[in-house]
Amino acid sequence: MALSLPKGFLYAGSSAGLKNDGKKDVAVVYSEVPSIAAGLFTTNAIKAAPVTVSMEQLRKGRKRMIIANSGIANAATAKDGVKDVNEIISAYAKGFDIRQEEILVASTGIIGRRLPVEKVVSQITALKNDLSRQGFMDAVKAIMTTDTVPKYGSRRLKIGSKETILTGFVKGSGMIQPHLATMLGFFTSDANITQGALKKALLGAAEASFNRITIDGEMSTNDTVLVMANGLAENDTITDEGRHYAAFEQAFIDLTRELAEKMVKDGEGANKVIEINVTGARNEEDARRVSFKLANSPLIKTAFFGEDPNWGRIVATVGAACSYASETGLKIWIGKQPVFSSGKGIDNESLLKVRNSMKNRTIQLTVDLGAGNRSFNVMTCDLTYDYIRINSTYTS
Amino acid sequence: MALSLPKGFLYAGSSAGLKNDGKKDVAVVYSEVPSIAAGLFTTNAIKAAPVTVSMEQLRKGRKRMIIANSGIANAATAKDGVKDVNEIISAYAKGFDIRQEEILVASTGIIGRRLPVEKVVSQITALKNDLSRQGFMDAVKAIMTTDTVPKYGSRRLKIGSKETILTGFVKGSGMIQPHLATMLGFFTSDANITQGALKKALLGAAEASFNRITIDGEMSTNDTVLVMANGLAENDTITDEGRHYAAFEQAFIDLTRELAEKMVKDGEGANKVIEINVTGARNEEDARRVSFKLANSPLIKTAFFGEDPNWGRIVATVGAACSYASETGLKIWIGKQPVFSSGKGIDNESLLKVRNSMKNRTIQLTVDLGAGNRSFNVMTCDLTYDYIRINSTYTS
Repeated sequence: MALSLPKGFLYAGSSAGLKNDGKKDVAVVYSEVPSIAAGLFTTNAIKAAPVTVSMEQLRKGRKRMIIANSGIANAATAKDGVKDVNEIISAYAKGFDIRQEEILVASTGIIGRRLPVEKVVSQITALKNDLSRQGFMDAVKAIMTTDTVPKYGSRRLKIGSKETILTGFVKGSGMIQPHLATMLGFFTSDANITQGALKKALLGAAEASFNRITIDGEMSTNDTVLVMANGLAENDTITDEGRHYAAFEQAFIDLTRELAEKMVKDGEGANKVIEINVTGARNEEDARRVSFKLANSPLIKTAFFGEDPNWGRIVATVGAACSYASETGLKIWIGKQPVFSSGKGIDNESLLKVRNSMKNRTIQLTVDLGAGNRSFNVMTCDLTYDYIRINSTYTS
Repeated sequence: MALSLPKGFLYAGSSAGLKNDGKKDVAVVYSEVPSIAAGLFTTNAIKAAPVTVSMEQLRKGRKRMIIANSGIANAATAKDGVKDVNEIISAYAKGFDIRQEEILVASTGIIGRRLPVEKVVSQITALKNDLSRQGFMDAVKAIMTTDTVPKYGSRRLKIGSKETILTGFVKGSGMIQPHLATMLGFFTSDANITQGALKKALLGAAEASFNRITIDGEMSTNDTVLVMANGLAENDTITDEGRHYAAFEQAFIDLTRELAEKMVKDGEGANKVIEINVTGARNEEDARRVSFKLANSPLIKTAFFGEDPNWGRIVATVGAACSYASETGLKIWIGKQPVFSSGKGIDNESLLKVRNSMKNRTIQLTVDLGAGNRSFNVMTCDLTYDYIRINSTYTS
């Protein structure tokens, strides 16, 4: 699908030297007119400075700009971190001739290091000069850390007689777990929409996408998803009770699901995507808990890496996560092949077929608890040698 | 410490061909006189057949024997699994001339495979002939799976004028998490002790040892810890309210701690032992939750493998696990070196010293939440390439 960009948004990315390799590390998203905005943030009790600052800024009306950096997370930096962010905001407001209240921020990278304010500020002129629609890819690259591919996408949506565009880009390949653990995501739209509707659609989209993926069960201090909508498409206003709302939320869900899947595919060291679907639960919370327990189980993740249909580990993990799971009620499928039901696993010949199907890059794992009619689905990746390699030397 | 064996217990181990490599796989622990017994089992909702059978057997008075096998877990085998265990018990009772109610069982190995009853039964004569005090090491070896070293120990304890002995052996190097996830442990003592006191001491010992270790957060279907005491030391009866109880429980704790530490050191692929101590919590449950979240964090475990003092990940994990954690209240030490306090990490030069201290095989990680006076400690190991290697091909 070709990328579409919404009216009135410009982008840029540059290198401030926050990363050792000199790659782009500061991104700017700029709206030519004041936009309404909404955000979602990590639920970690210890929030990075840019998170606490952006949460505060969101209470102060319309926005013009997002400044995001990679390389340094500016987390666990206490008051110094907040002071640093505020200095950056002050300098960028002056440089771009906008008000300080109109700026949102986000950071990702190593926790515990101070952000070198001068380096970030030194990029203002370059970023201002580069601001353009073509600058989109520079911005996308500037937020990447251990990501191996840029992750972005867009949706076109007719609202009445007007076409609106929603475009987003994300980063994140480790520390992802429900509640958005280290991912950054920035969405821009020219739709005319109320603040309430925008916030509701963001929540709905995240719940259906980013909150259903996990790489390693870790939760970051920095997760931030921001959306800005500037109304330049001049469509009838989308309100949260109005007739256009459902279509807007659905487009948002479609786009965030696409990006969530890209994040899992690009999970640290990931070799395979595992789509987990848990059905037959007494309530959704149980289905969710079993899904994530399976998705974060090192034994199951390594078995999928080894293309080993070790359904015994799946049985054990379900039993550990659900008090009413029973051997006789439980059914398990890998891909379309049933591997366990009525308390029995399949024979070795059938198992060989399953093993072959596990050579695929994407594998479905379906678990039916046989105890109710509620379900939940989660996407994760396998656990590989590369995960260990990447994470055993991250700050070294 | 030299191994001591309690009076009246004999041991044997033999190979029934349950393992591909032909190593020993059936162990027998035998008491010359009826013993009181107590057990602890997995809290997994899906329990292996030997677990449900042993739980039932424990209600039926004194015991003479434990039959344990490795190679096949006899889990997720439903009614067939129970039938198989009962056939084995019936044959062993006849072979050893004891009553069926006097036998306890335990299994470890691959989940979902039927136990070949004939093979297990075929070892009765050999095991009976080999029963001896010297057979102890054969029994120890016969319960090993991915364990690389045998794990056993003993304690001598004076009760009044009599010397009693408590001896134990364990297996388990993966799937270990609180509540005993796949470990087997068998303890024998010649102490004269009441059923109530023996059960209480077993619970106290497990809580202080096996329930404070984790390799990968997984929970097995088969965890079983059994203790038999035959009274042949002829000491004054130890009762749970009596004056000798504390000493007996302490000896039990000492021994189980020693064995728990050996299990962590021998964790699948483990290169280092990490001793985690969380202090300053508002209550013990919070301290426990933070300890286990740290101990099971793949990012922290890989950082320790890489000897990388990445305290930022520790801050993030604490924040994810404890709602009242705060940057300014939190203090972190690696070994004896403080690495984070008052919202600030240490400088790079000091960090280098910490990095050097991480070359040790055993590393302490201390986290003070600064919010109360309750604490908890957990022992774990690092996450390494070898863990992936071992677990990606386990059933292949």
